[in-house]
Amino acid sequence: MAILVQKFGGTSVADAEKIRRAARRVIKAAENGYSVVVVASARGKQTDQLVADALELNPNPPKREMDQLLSTGEQQTVSLFAMALDAMGRQAISFTGGQIRMMTDSVHTKARIRSIDAERIHNQLDQGKIVIVAGFQGIDEFENITTLGRGGSDTTAVAIAAALGAKECEIYTDVDGIYTSDPRIYKKAVKMDQISYDEMLEMASLGAGVMHPRAVEFGKKYDVKIHVRSSSDETIGTIITHEVPQMEGVVVSGATIQKDMAKIGLVGVDNVPGNAAKIFAHLAKAKVVVNDIIQTEISSEKANLSFMIEISDLDAARKAVAEIRNEVNFTDVFIREDIAEVSVIGVGMRTHYGVAEKMFGALAEAKVNIDSITTSEIRISCAVDEDQAEKALEAVCNVFELDRPAKQRGS
Amino acid sequence: MAILVQKFGGTSVADAEKIRRAARRVIKAAENGYSVVVVASARGKQTDQLVADALELNPNPPKREMDQLLSTGEQQTVSLFAMALDAMGRQAISFTGGQIRMMTDSVHTKARIRSIDAERIHNQLDQGKIVIVAGFQGIDEFENITTLGRGGSDTTAVAIAAALGAKECEIYTDVDGIYTSDPRIYKKAVKMDQISYDEMLEMASLGAGVMHPRAVEFGKKYDVKIHVRSSSDETIGTIITHEVPQMEGVVVSGATIQKDMAKIGLVGVDNVPGNAAKIFAHLAKAKVVVNDIIQTEISSEKANLSFMIEISDLDAARKAVAEIRNEVNFTDVFIREDIAEVSVIGVGMRTHYGVAEKMFGALAEAKVNIDSITTSEIRISCAVDEDQAEKALEAVCNVFELDRPAKQRGS
Repeated sequence: MAILVQKFGGTSVADAEKIRRAARRVIKAAENGYSVVVVASARGKQTDQLVADALELNPNPPKREMDQLLSTGEQQTVSLFAMALDAMGRQAISFTGGQIRMMTDSVHTKARIRSIDAERIHNQLDQGKIVIVAGFQGIDEFENITTLGRGGSDTTAVAIAAALGAKECEIYTDVDGIYTSDPRIYKKAVKMDQISYDEMLEMASLGAGVMHPRAVEFGKKYDVKIHVRSSSDETIGTIITHEVPQMEGVVVSGATIQKDMAKIGLVGVDNVPGNAAKIFAHLAKAKVVVNDIIQTEISSEKANLSFMIEISDLDAARKAVAEIRNEVNFTDVFIREDIAEVSVIGVGMRTHYGVAEKMFGALAEAKVNIDSITTSEIRISCAVDEDQAEKALEAVCNVFELDRPAKQRGS
Repeated sequence: MAILVQKFGGTSVADAEKIRRAARRVIKAAENGYSVVVVASARGKQTDQLVADALELNPNPPKREMDQLLSTGEQQTVSLFAMALDAMGRQAISFTGGQIRMMTDSVHTKARIRSIDAERIHNQLDQGKIVIVAGFQGIDEFENITTLGRGGSDTTAVAIAAALGAKECEIYTDVDGIYTSDPRIYKKAVKMDQISYDEMLEMASLGAGVMHPRAVEFGKKYDVKIHVRSSSDETIGTIITHEVPQMEGVVVSGATIQKDMAKIGLVGVDNVPGNAAKIFAHLAKAKVVVNDIIQTEISSEKANLSFMIEISDLDAARKAVAEIRNEVNFTDVFIREDIAEVSVIGVGMRTHYGVAEKMFGALAEAKVNIDSITTSEIRISCAVDEDQAEKALEAVCNVFELDRPAKQRGS
């Protein structure tokens, strides 16, 4: 029998009625002939409550103990989920991460998965049982409980789907799929039927928060089809998959906006080997995440270097720059705090020309000034004034027809 | 360094302040030179809440899943306890039952301990850490989580003390020790300094609910000194231990009362081999716990047979008696629902005469009618009218001077 993995997030299992609703969906899949593995998160606000309990006792709790504590949230959900299925006449069994040997490294609170004992799950499925696995958690080689950090339950679900050779991994959430752009800003955005892993990774890292990049990376690496869909209705959502022929006609799949950015520029940096390494080593030490590095020579000895950061990292970045000055010679530093980034993403860019020109033209027509431009193989990003950012997104979405399904677009 | 096991029940770790108080007590023991292992229960009403959550989804939840669910309560306490110790500058590490290989059989909700990996605990103690172990839980050979049932955390604590060769196992609770009788009924009851395992077992099984018999049995079997004491002050409580010389002078250590009993009598039972076995097989099948069986011959072919049960088992017992009638010939059945049992307990009875006579005399003087009498090596029990039970207890306590410490008694 084909195996289907269904993942339910915290809001989808927040109370008894929601657990029952999720359980009915699982039973429906079983009745449709699937062997079903459920991955579940902690109920609603349980994790927040546990974090509050911990902080009341210790403002800086040891990470190992934090993992020991937080993992109970998912363990509670999965046992309750199994009870709900049992009450509906279905045989079910719940497992913690440890019980299916979800082995991770020992980096508490953000561990990485190393291996899974698919055998134990297969055995239970073969007995006709529905298997419910606690998301977000694993154990290290010393049996310490670990957690996977943000997006952890999605990652668990995709990893289990990969380990079992599942047909698909369904991610049930409170939105009904992935949109061509953020519908709160670009109201005409439409749901995509499909998106490639690479496009989703670019979208996710640029702030479209539905799926965590780690889960998408896992899906790409192990070829797991991910179906993001709503837990409250039966609508088909968005499939994240490898590129398929029908995608090829589409040049731009989606557009994103990333606000609350700052740009730091170092002017007249001595252009000698090792200086860039020194600069970014200091920023890394200060735990500043750096994007969109641009370096341009201004003479044979000097260069300008700029990069984008999140505004929340600005203080740390300022201190890092002060330290950099002790090691690297540069003439000036400028900081822009009123900046945002608008990006278009599409695997079609690999083979189509004119995307950049079309984007810049749309921005010019909307009278949006472009501060700087960076590109990847499947993305073009423009830094713009923050108060022009929404106008810029709208212009870009319109020119690439992101208000209609891919099949109905002109280009 | 000598090892001390300290067990804190649910009321002693109910909130952050109580956890801190317990943690300070642990640190004090560590400062006194002990390697300390803490065993903790679920916080306050957590277990009740989880049971309610389960029943909302399934009126008859599968026991394996119940164990999976309930074990999270203790897991939360131990990680929070470790965080509290860390905040006080002490290195600590928490373990679930599974993590210290607390191996049990697979009888979910009332599993029995088979073995413990003392090595993992010793390793941590040797590193100077305080070790916090989740009570009440273990795992079976298939890594399923099990729970030990009522009194489970006490049993965990005593079992760990045994496995580690600890000097003592301290049980912190909301009473300050074991009393010569129930202080709610016999107001002059006094706290005992010491009691033997055997006496405690008789007391416990007769309704003095401070320590569960399983934990006491474990202590007896593995020679662990158990110290029952209050979590709210520093007073020395009661030590449960093997018989020591100073105990020998004491004939009666305590007296108990057991209410809500019923007595069932079968009159004129055919006295042929196998009939008693058939009768008690039916009662066992109906899960009726039977005490104080009395059989007396009334002729060469006939006997009367009576036994005591808890009143809550009466309906089940009535049905069992109806079935017994199909297999065993007897002339009549009588049932008394208004009966209680008053008992005196003391290892001194093994070597002293006159205890029974003294007890019966005290009851006669108090004008209490004795329905029936049963005895064990260290116990004498009298069934009496329920509405005379408290008067009977008072009379018995007074005659054996249970209102004063053992050393000050006349006999």
